[in-house]
Amino acid sequence: MADTAEAQTQTKAKAELDRARAGDTRALARLISLVEDESPRVRSVIKELLPSTGGARIIGLTGSPGVGKSTVTGALVGAFRAAGVRVAVLAVDPSSPFTGGALLGDRVRMQEHATDDQVYIRSMASRGHLGGLAASTPQAIRVLDAAGFELIIIETVGVGQAEVAIASLADSVVVLLAPGMGDAIQAAKAGILEVADVFVVNKADKPDSQQVVRDLRNMIALAEQVEGGWKPPIISAVAVRGEGIDELLGRLDEHWSWLGSSGELARRRHARAREEITALAFAALRGRMAAGHVEELASQVADGTLDPFQAADELLRPPAD
Amino acid sequence: MADTAEAQTQTKAKAELDRARAGDTRALARLISLVEDESPRVRSVIKELLPSTGGARIIGLTGSPGVGKSTVTGALVGAFRAAGVRVAVLAVDPSSPFTGGALLGDRVRMQEHATDDQVYIRSMASRGHLGGLAASTPQAIRVLDAAGFELIIIETVGVGQAEVAIASLADSVVVLLAPGMGDAIQAAKAGILEVADVFVVNKADKPDSQQVVRDLRNMIALAEQVEGGWKPPIISAVAVRGEGIDELLGRLDEHWSWLGSSGELARRRHARAREEITALAFAALRGRMAAGHVEELASQVADGTLDPFQAADELLRPPAD
Repeated sequence: MADTAEAQTQTKAKAELDRARAGDTRALARLISLVEDESPRVRSVIKELLPSTGGARIIGLTGSPGVGKSTVTGALVGAFRAAGVRVAVLAVDPSSPFTGGALLGDRVRMQEHATDDQVYIRSMASRGHLGGLAASTPQAIRVLDAAGFELIIIETVGVGQAEVAIASLADSVVVLLAPGMGDAIQAAKAGILEVADVFVVNKADKPDSQQVVRDLRNMIALAEQVEGGWKPPIISAVAVRGEGIDELLGRLDEHWSWLGSSGELARRRHARAREEITALAFAALRGRMAAGHVEELASQVADGTLDPFQAADELLRPPAD
Repeated sequence: MADTAEAQTQTKAKAELDRARAGDTRALARLISLVEDESPRVRSVIKELLPSTGGARIIGLTGSPGVGKSTVTGALVGAFRAAGVRVAVLAVDPSSPFTGGALLGDRVRMQEHATDDQVYIRSMASRGHLGGLAASTPQAIRVLDAAGFELIIIETVGVGQAEVAIASLADSVVVLLAPGMGDAIQAAKAGILEVADVFVVNKADKPDSQQVVRDLRNMIALAEQVEGGWKPPIISAVAVRGEGIDELLGRLDEHWSWLGSSGELARRRHARAREEITALAFAALRGRMAAGHVEELASQVADGTLDPFQAADELLRPPAD
């Protein structure tokens, strides 16, 4: 019976995926909602999509609120569209209670792409638990990848380690800073310097922007430089006027080439997969404990009818269903 | 072949256990060393011992260095021996690099029991990792329990949460304080007030001891009192002169009766079993990650040949051996 249900889910997912690939935005939205809901059907859907994934290039973009993330994302989308690339944007806002593909209020620059059916923009919000978002974002990326988007931009508010972790689901991570909007030292504290492949100091027409660039340069100089490694460039930009976007594109392309030639792309994707399955395994184990399975085993151990090592094995064994 | 090795280990463990029950201290020491070493054979040994366990009463004794733990333990051993009870002491010292059954230097009061073959005293040290000690102490308790000791005293230095956790492997926990040797507020910070079933303020002949009693009384008054619950008594003692030991014994017996009549003994042993198997399961999972199994799975997920959910299931599945 379970197999039949799974087969049905997979058949349906395949049909939805075919529609999404053909440009049906509603089918795509339904697939993302499904993985976002952490429904048990997610497993079947991902299994079905998996062979069609791995082709997309993923760019992460993070920074404090107000640095101009939407503006830069909008400019990037425009530039990639001009080159004929199919682009998807996942705007992940852990602090926002909104979800369901609603455009955020400040996405003015993104609106110009709203009528372009080769661009898909989707917001994901945490609905209270960031852990869920961290778990569902990789699945949402797989859906977009399988649906044929060549470039996926993950935009996230870089306010802490957890948000930074979401940005690091990307192949290339762009960290945005702006004068007066959380300085480089704050960024260092949030741990975003380590994940940055490219820095953009936006609002470069403002008085303090050169100070931000200097601070960044000093901090990068302090970081250990690996032989043949990537040294994150710092780009000054005024994104609202489109200044610095060409340089950002150039640097991103250089990074993309380096990822491939250095073997770092494979290493990053491997590390991401490891983190994902580790997190899923720990979550499953915690879930089984919460579900009371552990209580039954504990009773047997306390009774002396089961040894604790075998009980631990039982706890680790996926439940038959 | 694995089954034969396991059968051999179990046969050997059974023979050693029979010798230990008959009073062979060396056989007992070998069994404890085996569980302390976290050898793979521990599983077989514990499985063999398990049906003989559950009969021992376990008392935990914790306090800062210098409060007189060894003196109180020695006095307790003497009192229980006078009643004809077979007693074992596990002195767990997370900060000590020594192990292997060596008597600690300050166990002067314990020496009088050194020639009593109905008393077994054993030190366990951390050899660097407290987690290992927390994992092996329950197994050492099982060995002593199966070897026929009616009372097991776990003595541990109460300097932090981890040490306190080891003391809470007991049915009754005695917390020792002394004037000038880490006050009640420090004890509260270390989390030992919550686990205390009986407080002993030792060195009650010293000037500040009444202040320690008053501080403790105030802190207990602040704690929530459950209807029909156990309110930890405070005993003033001068253990070097044997003063207060009779009262301690009386309170411990009252607590032991209450544990049985209230159902708390079963609840505590269940909770202990749950914590033990949870810790073993998480440790096994971390071990499998360290052992490289996760790398192989991560490669398949990164390749798109395995979905992350199935990979997590694989990680949770105990390896075939």
